[in-house]
Amino acid sequence: MKVYADNAATTRMSRNAIDTMVKYMEETYGNPSSLYTIGQKAKEALEEAREEVAKVINASPREITFTSGGSEADNQAIISAAALGAAKGKKHIISTAFEHHAVLHTLAKLEKEGFEVTLLDVHEDGIVRPEELEEAIREDTCLITIMYANNEIGTIQPVKEIGRIARAHGIIFHTDAVQAIGHIPIDVEESNIDMLSASAHKFHGPKGVGFLYARKGIRLQNIIEGGAQERGKRAGTENVPGIMAMAVALRDAAESMSETSPGMRARRDRLIKGLREIPHSALNGNEELRLPSNVNFCFEGIEGESLLLLLDQKGISASSGSACTSGSLDPSHVLLAIGRVHDVAHGSLRLSIGEDTTDDEVDYIIESVKEVVAYLRSFSPVWRDLESGKAKHIL
Amino acid sequence: MKVYADNAATTRMSRNAIDTMVKYMEETYGNPSSLYTIGQKAKEALEEAREEVAKVINASPREITFTSGGSEADNQAIISAAALGAAKGKKHIISTAFEHHAVLHTLAKLEKEGFEVTLLDVHEDGIVRPEELEEAIREDTCLITIMYANNEIGTIQPVKEIGRIARAHGIIFHTDAVQAIGHIPIDVEESNIDMLSASAHKFHGPKGVGFLYARKGIRLQNIIEGGAQERGKRAGTENVPGIMAMAVALRDAAESMSETSPGMRARRDRLIKGLREIPHSALNGNEELRLPSNVNFCFEGIEGESLLLLLDQKGISASSGSACTSGSLDPSHVLLAIGRVHDVAHGSLRLSIGEDTTDDEVDYIIESVKEVVAYLRSFSPVWRDLESGKAKHIL
Repeated sequence: MKVYADNAATTRMSRNAIDTMVKYMEETYGNPSSLYTIGQKAKEALEEAREEVAKVINASPREITFTSGGSEADNQAIISAAALGAAKGKKHIISTAFEHHAVLHTLAKLEKEGFEVTLLDVHEDGIVRPEELEEAIREDTCLITIMYANNEIGTIQPVKEIGRIARAHGIIFHTDAVQAIGHIPIDVEESNIDMLSASAHKFHGPKGVGFLYARKGIRLQNIIEGGAQERGKRAGTENVPGIMAMAVALRDAAESMSETSPGMRARRDRLIKGLREIPHSALNGNEELRLPSNVNFCFEGIEGESLLLLLDQKGISASSGSACTSGSLDPSHVLLAIGRVHDVAHGSLRLSIGEDTTDDEVDYIIESVKEVVAYLRSFSPVWRDLESGKAKHIL
Repeated sequence: MKVYADNAATTRMSRNAIDTMVKYMEETYGNPSSLYTIGQKAKEALEEAREEVAKVINASPREITFTSGGSEADNQAIISAAALGAAKGKKHIISTAFEHHAVLHTLAKLEKEGFEVTLLDVHEDGIVRPEELEEAIREDTCLITIMYANNEIGTIQPVKEIGRIARAHGIIFHTDAVQAIGHIPIDVEESNIDMLSASAHKFHGPKGVGFLYARKGIRLQNIIEGGAQERGKRAGTENVPGIMAMAVALRDAAESMSETSPGMRARRDRLIKGLREIPHSALNGNEELRLPSNVNFCFEGIEGESLLLLLDQKGISASSGSACTSGSLDPSHVLLAIGRVHDVAHGSLRLSIGEDTTDDEVDYIIESVKEVVAYLRSFSPVWRDLESGKAKHIL
């Protein structure tokens, strides 16, 4: 059996998105900045895509800037809000310790430029506490950047409360919604979100495309200078086929969400229930406040990498955490942020199911993980120490 | 007849490039940073693409960083070279007045940060003089950035001489080769090019993909922070389908170049000859040292925009200059740089033919432009003044 269970890393493009992409590559290849018909058609298409995307999050089209993906959108959002803050002498930013590196590394760059960053605790359940946000706010706070849903453990943050607090204090609220958009409903008006980052390939759209929503009145800084595309805020010939495919994928995801979500939640919970039967295992992150797709476990006494390789041999594609940091020997910064110790964090497994994952596939994953964990533990010296009482079980 | 003559703005994707893109969208959708098979296949594909791309310009694969396009590559190249310069107290950059805005606007940003920029004269023929470059070099020059071929008038710069001079002085030489690569042979070793920017959609590849070549030892600055992709120098999930399609398109272009170029040159010259028959017209830029695809004329007494709209009605897609700046009422900065006065620069027409443009299409363009120019002049007050002797002809 082949089971793709790494939809948080990237999704397979939908047929609709691929067909749209091909149509625009073949037919509407004109440069949208051109005056002639084929260019104007591309321009019109772009504006339709902008409307489509805006509608899904209840924004207006002019508030959408197309980018090359979620990382670029995160970078541009944070740098822009920081520049607005700096202009008013406000150089304090609030975020969390378990943000995506596109956020954390941009904040680190700003710290070198004299900004101060407060990282909120995300507690054992991977959820920010609004009252702690409120306490962290200072006179010079210019930006609150907190992800909508975490990319490793899938926990959904109290975005409405965060938005309410940010608005009450007149502070810009940016959210990295890369994992959330297309998977759970988002309303930037209702949640008082001022800036939001998204990436198409996380909701069955193409790689290399994303967008930044920035509320009207928030002046963006260019991170790519050049031509006057995207109202002068993002240079470079627009990736029309990619943008069109993103719009179609997002529309489809938003439309089918209420239909697909209950089934996904049921299968997620079936998966959680099954994996819990493995002794000395633990679910990472709050069980209720999490994406319908996300399951993340720690297993004592094993190495995540070996687990992944053996699951791959069984046809299961899964990950130990964020794809962006694989290759690194450090344990996940997300798992450390929720208080997992190094050894336990190393034995982690993220399974992110898709809309089309079946019960049979879920059962196959459970069976396979059980088998592989038992096998790995059978020759793990760490496990031997735990079982013999030389070391103490934590989970 | 439908004639697409704006290949400098963007090209139609080749069948091969589209098919490659679809193959990777459908089959190899894994995240290259993942450990499982489908991710590793994507990673291997990426490395093959890197080799393919490197080979075309005689670089090594490790010197290639994939980007979202030419503008991003230009930005990253210049910012990186500037940072290296600043670290040594060298804050002088040499460029030209007719670079692409991705270069000029990045230089303007650096000027605000204390860099000094010398813009070389490109003379009436649109060609930089190596001896003037040599004279402009100072003790604190850290970067020479001069485009390979101009995007509006297609003039090819003496890149080998520039590279030789830069190397002799130990100064980084970056070239925006967006218009040149895939159209004329490029060898970074032979020409002592240290950094080079390219964009896939200018050589029948997809939009939203490009690359930056940076000679081994030149440390890149990230302009998009985040994950560790591209050896930590360009964050964001790699656009595998786009990169694969770019590699295929570039390989195809490089392989067919020697076969297609003579025919294109002949048709370019046929077009130039035909348009010269229009009274009070002039070719912009050197006739010999120009891309096989590029024809750029000024016509006295007309508005470029009206010319384009009427040509579009005849099925001809053309432009007045760079697509990136259309919508602006200012005349082309390129035409001003080669000494055209405002009025004349406004009456410009860029025709950029493709490998598949036929003699019949060229003849149709000539006939149509003649007709439209005559028609526009028939009710142009500027033309009436010129013809009555009230104003003096310049061309």
